[in-house]
Amino acid sequence: MTEIESKAKAARDASFVLASLSTDAKNRVLLDLANRLTSERAAILEANRKDMEEARASNLSFAKLKRLELTETLLDQMADGLRQIVALPDPIGQVVKESKTAAGLEVQKVRIPLGVIAMIYESRPNVTVDAFGLCFKAGNACFLKGGKEAAHSNAALAELARAALRASNLPEAAVEVMTTNDRDAIRELLTMDQYLDLVIPRGGTALIQFVHEHSRIPMVQHFHGVCHVYVDVDADAKRAVPICVTAKTSSPATCNTLECVLIHADRAKELVPVLCKEYADAGVEVRGDERVRKLAASAVAANDGDWGCEYLDLIVAMKVVDSLDDAIAHIRKYGSNHTDAIVSESADAQQAFIRNVGSSCVLTNASTRFNDGYQLGLGAEIGISTSRIHAYGPMGLEELTTQRYVVRGEGQVR
Amino acid sequence: MTEIESKAKAARDASFVLASLSTDAKNRVLLDLANRLTSERAAILEANRKDMEEARASNLSFAKLKRLELTETLLDQMADGLRQIVALPDPIGQVVKESKTAAGLEVQKVRIPLGVIAMIYESRPNVTVDAFGLCFKAGNACFLKGGKEAAHSNAALAELARAALRASNLPEAAVEVMTTNDRDAIRELLTMDQYLDLVIPRGGTALIQFVHEHSRIPMVQHFHGVCHVYVDVDADAKRAVPICVTAKTSSPATCNTLECVLIHADRAKELVPVLCKEYADAGVEVRGDERVRKLAASAVAANDGDWGCEYLDLIVAMKVVDSLDDAIAHIRKYGSNHTDAIVSESADAQQAFIRNVGSSCVLTNASTRFNDGYQLGLGAEIGISTSRIHAYGPMGLEELTTQRYVVRGEGQVR
Repeated sequence: MTEIESKAKAARDASFVLASLSTDAKNRVLLDLANRLTSERAAILEANRKDMEEARASNLSFAKLKRLELTETLLDQMADGLRQIVALPDPIGQVVKESKTAAGLEVQKVRIPLGVIAMIYESRPNVTVDAFGLCFKAGNACFLKGGKEAAHSNAALAELARAALRASNLPEAAVEVMTTNDRDAIRELLTMDQYLDLVIPRGGTALIQFVHEHSRIPMVQHFHGVCHVYVDVDADAKRAVPICVTAKTSSPATCNTLECVLIHADRAKELVPVLCKEYADAGVEVRGDERVRKLAASAVAANDGDWGCEYLDLIVAMKVVDSLDDAIAHIRKYGSNHTDAIVSESADAQQAFIRNVGSSCVLTNASTRFNDGYQLGLGAEIGISTSRIHAYGPMGLEELTTQRYVVRGEGQVR
Repeated sequence: MTEIESKAKAARDASFVLASLSTDAKNRVLLDLANRLTSERAAILEANRKDMEEARASNLSFAKLKRLELTETLLDQMADGLRQIVALPDPIGQVVKESKTAAGLEVQKVRIPLGVIAMIYESRPNVTVDAFGLCFKAGNACFLKGGKEAAHSNAALAELARAALRASNLPEAAVEVMTTNDRDAIRELLTMDQYLDLVIPRGGTALIQFVHEHSRIPMVQHFHGVCHVYVDVDADAKRAVPICVTAKTSSPATCNTLECVLIHADRAKELVPVLCKEYADAGVEVRGDERVRKLAASAVAANDGDWGCEYLDLIVAMKVVDSLDDAIAHIRKYGSNHTDAIVSESADAQQAFIRNVGSSCVLTNASTRFNDGYQLGLGAEIGISTSRIHAYGPMGLEELTTQRYVVRGEGQVR
């Protein structure tokens, strides 16, 4: 048995123990880990310092260094995040549906854990703690594979989680960490469908495509967000402009940031100049089609690659469309099923947009930036799924479970 | 564009139309198809006659011929099945959850279709009509690939569905059929994840493994059922014996049939002889471990291959276990996450069994044969999922949908 296989098997065995833990027992471990993030602060920051040193030596970009760096504040936030997970209701054992059949059987549909969840992610070491916290509260073991830049930090954080598990006499294999960064090893991990129930890749396109190509384990994709706002003929300009501007500027590099504005032709003359001015003031480059550029000299010419592009930067595409139907057709063609919004005062237009745009989150008269587990009331999220299977949109605790049937009889046969 | 790709794309385009159909519009098509199954009976039976002729010429087994054959009664049953689907509530548009956020946003979690569902199945031509009926009512287009033996029958049935769609001015690409039986073509189909949202293979192990190995489309497995009944120390014999016997004999070749009886050691002397006698009378071969064979001369010796075996025949494995924990360990090792039952009057034992056996359906004091969409009140099922992702257990209309967020604001930004 290879090292990866024996770790995967150990995680599977641990998952049997986790599946029947009480809510209190789970919360105790999470609170213990939260406290250790404070008491063991020095050791974690020391591990992170090693990662940072190596990263600087290998000329990692400034943005990536920023994502890698841990601070006391960030550790406190991670601890707070765990305490928030403690406060969330335990999904395990929830009865989703109940009925009595003609044969007199009592049928319940009940939430149980998925089992073992593999997370493959890049950079940000806080994912190690967040992912463990969410998986564990939902009764799952997890198998974590972080980025090579964060190897020391991730190892230190995982060891903290394992210490918290040991302190509660629970199997430390409830969190397994893969330390090698060898692609063959990841490929091997992705064949372990006898031990792993779900794989969640979080990171760039190359990572997600690699997992998609090689995984025999079911996968929930957290793919890119090519988010649109369509400004309808019946839009209220006082709503449209702030939504379009802030949805890009408030956090330009997140997956729910706005990437493309579609404006109804009848409102273009009025709104394109205002929007382009506001974008220019905020340092946002507008890449417009011809009709946009005729109305705003500041816009540069968009080319075919701009439609459907996830900039994750202070850039936005802008296009004039002749109708709601054209906007829908554009989103179907170029969107990524992540988040799309309409600004309109017309109930009919809103309804048509909702009915015909199939994204994981559609909004009316609100910013795309609200598609987020915290904002939508899930409490915490492990990512935003862009595939329709199993979970679509922000994945919280419930999305880390499955439902099965428990049937109670009195000797019924058939 | 290959033929398969253009069909897959046509199905995707049709799925956009289906997603916003009213319940009435969908039911009209299903009722029309039900009527055509009667009015076009002669043509279907003629197509089936061709399949049967070719099957006989190629020496198909008697059991397979039986599964292939269509009769007037079977056509009536298929039509009734469609009428039952019409009577079921439409899952699309159902609001699963609703809340108002601190920012004043109205958040709904709403059911929408999955999109395009590919079914790859063997023999039984009735699956063509059942699968179309369920997928269509849940707003999905479907791409059907049936067995080569049933090619004429499946083509005739699918053409009937397409005629019903045309009569309602709906795109006939809502049901696409793959006629070639070439493995390369199936492999190509399984790469079309840009057009297909889910693949459901239904058939033997070889088929499921082939799909599992080659699919880039998310897959819900309907794998085999290695179902257990554990007869606890606190079992009521008057319940245990009929459950064990009928769960095997009432339909020995279905996936929810009993394949292995586990008996607590303290009840073995009393129950093993009774059970073996009843099985012998019913023509069931018992394959027992040593402790079973000491108590019942009629049992033949089980070997390692008998644990975890899906016989789908008048054969059952039987083993004496020392405790509930041993029974659970056996089921974890050899079960297939399909259906497992405990016979016990002890609430503690029932609870421990439910908590520790993770199958898609666990039962107390009832036959494994109740794990079935009709029996559990789903109305109809497209199969029984044995993987925890997306759906676990019988898949009805709801399991052919996904849920996404609809958020209504009044100009909120962040």
